Amino acid sequence: MKIVSSLLPEQALQEAIQKKFPEIQFQFFKGMKNAFESFQEAEVFMTYGEDLTEELIHSARNLRWIMVMSAGLEKMPLAACEEKGILVTNARGVHKIPMAEFTLGAMLQYVKQTKLLSEREADENWDRKIPMAELCGKTILILGVGAIGGEIARLAKAFRMNTIGVNRSGDQVDYVDELYTMKEVPEVIEKADFIVSVLPSTDETSNVLTYEHFQAMKNTAVFINIGRGDLVKDETLLKALENNEIAHAYLDVFEQEPLPKGHSFWKMENVTVTPHLSSITKNYLPRAFEIFEQNLHTYNKKGVNYKNRIDLSRGY
Amino acid sequence: MKIVSSLLPEQALQEAIQKKFPEIQFQFFKGMKNAFESFQEAEVFMTYGEDLTEELIHSARNLRWIMVMSAGLEKMPLAACEEKGILVTNARGVHKIPMAEFTLGAMLQYVKQTKLLSEREADENWDRKIPMAELCGKTILILGVGAIGGEIARLAKAFRMNTIGVNRSGDQVDYVDELYTMKEVPEVIEKADFIVSVLPSTDETSNVLTYEHFQAMKNTAVFINIGRGDLVKDETLLKALENNEIAHAYLDVFEQEPLPKGHSFWKMENVTVTPHLSSITKNYLPRAFEIFEQNLHTYNKKGVNYKNRIDLSRGY
Repeated sequence: MKIVSSLLPEQALQEAIQKKFPEIQFQFFKGMKNAFESFQEAEVFMTYGEDLTEELIHSARNLRWIMVMSAGLEKMPLAACEEKGILVTNARGVHKIPMAEFTLGAMLQYVKQTKLLSEREADENWDRKIPMAELCGKTILILGVGAIGGEIARLAKAFRMNTIGVNRSGDQVDYVDELYTMKEVPEVIEKADFIVSVLPSTDETSNVLTYEHFQAMKNTAVFINIGRGDLVKDETLLKALENNEIAHAYLDVFEQEPLPKGHSFWKMENVTVTPHLSSITKNYLPRAFEIFEQNLHTYNKKGVNYKNRIDLSRGY
Repeated sequence: MKIVSSLLPEQALQEAIQKKFPEIQFQFFKGMKNAFESFQEAEVFMTYGEDLTEELIHSARNLRWIMVMSAGLEKMPLAACEEKGILVTNARGVHKIPMAEFTLGAMLQYVKQTKLLSEREADENWDRKIPMAELCGKTILILGVGAIGGEIARLAKAFRMNTIGVNRSGDQVDYVDELYTMKEVPEVIEKADFIVSVLPSTDETSNVLTYEHFQAMKNTAVFINIGRGDLVKDETLLKALENNEIAHAYLDVFEQEPLPKGHSFWKMENVTVTPHLSSITKNYLPRAFEIFEQNLHTYNKKGVNYKNRIDLSRGY
C-alpha cells in the first residue's frame, strides 16, 4: 500500500509513523505540485485539505481514503469524493486545546488590563489604580459548542464562570449551564459578558450576527471571534464598535485575510487584531498524526469505526 | 456592641451589614486618624492590618476581636494582641481567585506571545510565523501551596499541566501531582516550565531563592513572583536574567515598592513589571465581608469555630 502526503512534516514524525507501519510505503512531499505524480497511484492521501480539485480526485487511480490534516473542509471537493466512494476523515479536535487556551488568554488579558499595564510599564509608572476585574462569576456565551467550544466551556467552568452554549440541536453539552439554538440567541445575549464564536463558515453561519445582536449585547461585553470572519460583516462590527454597543473585540479572523493594511480594525482602541493563529501550535501535527495513526489501524483491519469520518452528503 | 472600622467600604456594603445586624452599632471611618476616638471604645475593630501599634492595642478599653480585612499580618502587633487575649481573624482566601487568575493570565500571555502580537498589530503586520505554544503538557512549580497556590494548581490542572507544589510539610494537597519541601526544590526545579511564588514574607522565606536556584532552572523557564519581593534579592534576579538563566520574569512584587523609576526591571525585554496588584479586584471587600459576617455570627453566639482565626504565637 502506498500513502502519499502533500504536507511535509518534520523528519521525526515521518520516521515515527514509518517505523510503526513498516509494511507501508510512505511518501511525503512539500505541496501538491511535488506530490502530484505519486498522488496518481496513492491509495491513501494526506493533505491540509486546500490542494484538491474535482479533476484531481477523478485523475487518481487507486485513491480510497483522504486524511485531511485540519478541521476545515471548505476547499475539499466532497461531492467528487462521494461519487468515487472515497473515505474522508479530518483532524477535528486537534484545534480544541490551542484555541481554548487562546480564548481564555484573551479574556484574562481583558479583565487583567494587560494592555494598559503594559503602557504604564513603558512609562515606568507604578499605577495601582487600574481597575482589575475577574472572570469568576462572569458569563460567557459560546457560539458553537462542539469540540472547541466544549473545551472553552470546560475551562470557563474551572474559572467559576457561567456558561451559555449555542448549537444546532439545543441539546445538553458538558460544562454548559444553558443551551440554545441560534434563533434563541437574541433573547439571551444580554446576559453575556463574553461572546465567543468558534463557528465554521457554512451557509447557516454566514453573516448570522447582525447589528441587532450587537445592540442586544451589554455595552460592557467583549466579543471574541476565532471561528470564521464571515460570521459578521465588517461594516456591522465596525458600526457596533464605533457606537460602543460593546466594549471590545478580539478578532483573529476576518472577512478578508490577511487583514489589509490601513483597515480600521488595526488601529481601533477597542479592537485587538491577531493574524488567524488561535489554532496554531507546535503540537498540531503530532496530534493530527495520532488521529491518522488510529484510523490507519482501522483501515488496515478493514474496520468501520473511523475517528472524524466525514459524512460527505452533510459536509461535516 | 460597637464595631469600629478604619476602612471605609462603599455605602452599599455598609448598609448591607448594618441591615443584617440591626442591634449592632457600626462605625466606619477612612483611616485610623479618623477612627481613633471610636476605636478606644470598640469591642470589634475592622482594619487592613497596617494601622495598629502595641500602644494602640493597649489603649483600647473594650477590644476583644480584630478582623484584619487582608491576608498580610506583617504589621500587626500580634504579641500585644496575645497578651490582651484579643481574637484576631483575617481575610485569608479572599486573594486566591484574583491571584490565581492573574497567574494564569501571565502564563497565557507568555505562551500566546501577547506582547509580540501587540507589537505586530501596532505595525499593521499580519505575521503568522510567531511561534505559538501551549500550557497543556507543561509543568508548573508552585512555591507555597496554601489557599492561593492551591487555586493556581487547580486551574493549572484544568489546563492539563503537570503541577509540583512546595509547602512546609511536604504533605499532599489537591490538584498537586508532586509535593516537596523548600529544601528539596533544587532537585526538582529543573522540571519546571513555570516557577510561581506566592510565598509571604517570613524569616523562612526571606532571600530563600538564590542564584543556584536560577542556574538549576531551565533556560526556557518563566519565573512569576506574586508573593513578596524579598523572596529573592534584586541583584540575584537581575544577574539570572542578564545571563539568560531563565527566559522571562513576571514580577508583581519587589524588594522596594513602588519600584523606583530607572530601575533596570522596568526596561528589560525579558521582564514584565506590574505594580503589586495581582490580588486587587472589585470583589475583594464583598468577599472579606462575607468572612467577617460569618465570624460575627459565631462571635454573637459565643461560638469557637472562627474562619481564619490567627494562631497568635505562630503568627499565621
